Amino acid sequence: MYPIPVQTLIDELGRLPGVGPKSAQRIAFHLLKLPVDDANRLARAIAEVKETVRACERCYNVTDAAYPGCVDDPTSLCSSDRRDTSLLCVVEEPRDIVAIERTGEFKGRYHVLQGAISPIDGVGPDQLRVKELLLRIGEDDVEEVIICTNPNIEGEATAMFLARLLKDIGITVSRIASGLPVGGDLEYADELTLGRALEGRRALEA
Amino acid sequence: MYPIPVQTLIDELGRLPGVGPKSAQRIAFHLLKLPVDDANRLARAIAEVKETVRACERCYNVTDAAYPGCVDDPTSLCSSDRRDTSLLCVVEEPRDIVAIERTGEFKGRYHVLQGAISPIDGVGPDQLRVKELLLRIGEDDVEEVIICTNPNIEGEATAMFLARLLKDIGITVSRIASGLPVGGDLEYADELTLGRALEGRRALEA
Repeated sequence: MYPIPVQTLIDELGRLPGVGPKSAQRIAFHLLKLPVDDANRLARAIAEVKETVRACERCYNVTDAAYPGCVDDPTSLCSSDRRDTSLLCVVEEPRDIVAIERTGEFKGRYHVLQGAISPIDGVGPDQLRVKELLLRIGEDDVEEVIICTNPNIEGEATAMFLARLLKDIGITVSRIASGLPVGGDLEYADELTLGRALEGRRALEA
Repeated sequence: MYPIPVQTLIDELGRLPGVGPKSAQRIAFHLLKLPVDDANRLARAIAEVKETVRACERCYNVTDAAYPGCVDDPTSLCSSDRRDTSLLCVVEEPRDIVAIERTGEFKGRYHVLQGAISPIDGVGPDQLRVKELLLRIGEDDVEEVIICTNPNIEGEATAMFLARLLKDIGITVSRIASGLPVGGDLEYADELTLGRALEGRRALEA
């Protein structure tokens, strides 16, 4: 129905996460209408990101391909000497780091698992950067590991797995709290979240 | 926060229609995880579509850049001698043609306006392919123009404008029907649609 290059573009866009056939079509025609330079800027950005960005070989955050470990990259979080090396925050994906950094509450370093345990998707501990996490804890003087995987089934399973794995090596292992979101409403909270909020209650000091 | 190429990609993706900052981030990390060939296929598809696809100089549907008019393109709708040249369907965008072709109910030719009248967006008749439509009606032996712009404010304004423009040149001008969608439910129809459905009622022949 469409010329082949248009259909090819729609098919390729349709493979992106969260882009259905209708959105793919809409985006394709948007790109067709754009000035050629604007459209090619996107094409170049894709090619460039694949060329110049790698996962750091130590923390597995995204980093400049010029540095095999991002500790050597002057712009990375790991290279900053203001970060507390005794605290290690374990997350699923690089974007989780951005979310945590935005709070300004954490001054340690990060380790990216590159996913969460999910047997349905064929992802077990071997597919994640767990071995690398153990190596790192052994080499650095890590005192506390904060497990910040998502509070969903896969994230909780990963957290439980890591907690068991780390319990005998003499470091503190903690998990971010689940509970009501700030500004939320008890009436509208689902029972699981409310249950967790009750379970995780803290003593009020007045 | 992210390496510059990643941030650039997120920014470029965020400019696409229907892609917010969160989706842009999600798509960018998806592309980062993809094998390099798969990601570059998308980059190439964008570059290729800008190189090889143009609007036909006659009907303004998308067509191969090798042919200035898609009548000469053996794969186009206009080149088929099975199409009725006396019927001309006027649509806003090339994707509307695909929707109409899918019904299998229309055997005429198409004219793409490349938009609809929308003063808020600075789009008037001069920004649309209206002059080209008049030329085409003059040159071809068009007997009926079916206005298939969208049944929203902009599409209706465009339809009214075209109806007035064409009323004195002695051809039939028609508009696709508005009404309840097939399989729909009277109870849930909005009052505008229901009003239109009543207004457009047809005699039942038993």
